[in-house]
Amino acid sequence: MLATLYHFWLCPFSRAARLALHESGVEFELELEKTWERRAEFLALNPAGDVPVLKIRQEEGDDDVPAMAGIQSIFAYLAKPGDNGLIGKTMSDHITIRNLLHWFITKFDREVTKNLVGQKVIKRLLRSGTPNGQAIRAGHHNIKIHLDYIQHLLARQKWLAGDTMTLADLMAAAQLSCVDYLGDVPWNDYGEAKLWYAKIKSRPSFRPLLGEHIPGTPPADHYSNLDF
Amino acid sequence: MLATLYHFWLCPFSRAARLALHESGVEFELELEKTWERRAEFLALNPAGDVPVLKIRQEEGDDDVPAMAGIQSIFAYLAKPGDNGLIGKTMSDHITIRNLLHWFITKFDREVTKNLVGQKVIKRLLRSGTPNGQAIRAGHHNIKIHLDYIQHLLARQKWLAGDTMTLADLMAAAQLSCVDYLGDVPWNDYGEAKLWYAKIKSRPSFRPLLGEHIPGTPPADHYSNLDF
Repeated sequence: MLATLYHFWLCPFSRAARLALHESGVEFELELEKTWERRAEFLALNPAGDVPVLKIRQEEGDDDVPAMAGIQSIFAYLAKPGDNGLIGKTMSDHITIRNLLHWFITKFDREVTKNLVGQKVIKRLLRSGTPNGQAIRAGHHNIKIHLDYIQHLLARQKWLAGDTMTLADLMAAAQLSCVDYLGDVPWNDYGEAKLWYAKIKSRPSFRPLLGEHIPGTPPADHYSNLDF
Repeated sequence: MLATLYHFWLCPFSRAARLALHESGVEFELELEKTWERRAEFLALNPAGDVPVLKIRQEEGDDDVPAMAGIQSIFAYLAKPGDNGLIGKTMSDHITIRNLLHWFITKFDREVTKNLVGQKVIKRLLRSGTPNGQAIRAGHHNIKIHLDYIQHLLARQKWLAGDTMTLADLMAAAQLSCVDYLGDVPWNDYGEAKLWYAKIKSRPSFRPLLGEHIPGTPPADHYSNLDF
């Protein structure tokens, strides 16, 4: 199976898809999609016009599978309960992971990533106004609450949802990696969260994210350092 | 199995959960949750503090299943590919439905519901400022694009994802029902979408939504009329 993942820089959902594909052993190529250009070929794959989108290349005899739009579609395709440890083996594990995905896909995104990465980088790339200082201050405040929550989870288990790495860890790390690119994660105040992130950061699936450089916004000094 | 669904008025995700539970034959009780009060018992079920949350009441011998937070967790619990027509029988159907869920959970919500219901009702209930006229105008503009998309889908099939009703229809109808409560859906310009909505509106699962009255905001005249 060979797949194409349409993605964008510092998009946490694109990053989570990259990690989950790699961890699931799916070979894929990356295609950078500037969604604001609204390319007809891309809109034909995903009328919603956003990234990530995963297109599995068809071979003769394969079922015809539509392109998948959004991280929840991609996760649902990659990980089915029971057959893939990434989404849990039992229904109870599965729900725990899904609840954490809800947290990091909606709450972390709205309270942290949109306020920091959205204001500082995406607005400039999209030429959609100047950064809002109040939003940035909110992002710096909120990230502490999220790191507290991560530490609360890690106090009783090795990974966010239990004793094995799951999609919850990948999604959370993908969000944090976008903020960390800007140097806006106060790691030194959160030792257990830092150790957990260092474990994920050192995985082969993470390496391509660490090599990514966004034009006009160099990463923070420690960003690609495994021993940060 | 008896379950409790924590919900809130005109929350499209709470409404979608109500429809999906009813259509799946799950008996449940409703609990109105004022999330801004941040009740300790509710936060223990869902640390993210938002609705909907589904708690399955345990009986002796049952597996201990955590409460489910967010519509994606609830959908994942109710509908597994292959064993429930609501999420599709084949992988290809399943992806089509998931892509539509992505559309109506994220794009419709951001472009329409937040701009209309969020500005006109939720802000008042939460005492978080006055309605923003620019957002409301954007909502009125955007809903036409979404109704066009619904009609585009219905031009080739009876339901949004194919020839049977799925979670995609329930999620889309839940969003539209919130906007329709305010009388802000221009049904008369969208005949096929109106027929499709009338079919869902007449299902027993929909009746409780039509009986709901939000204090201080009476529904539009035609809201509960099955022959609108």
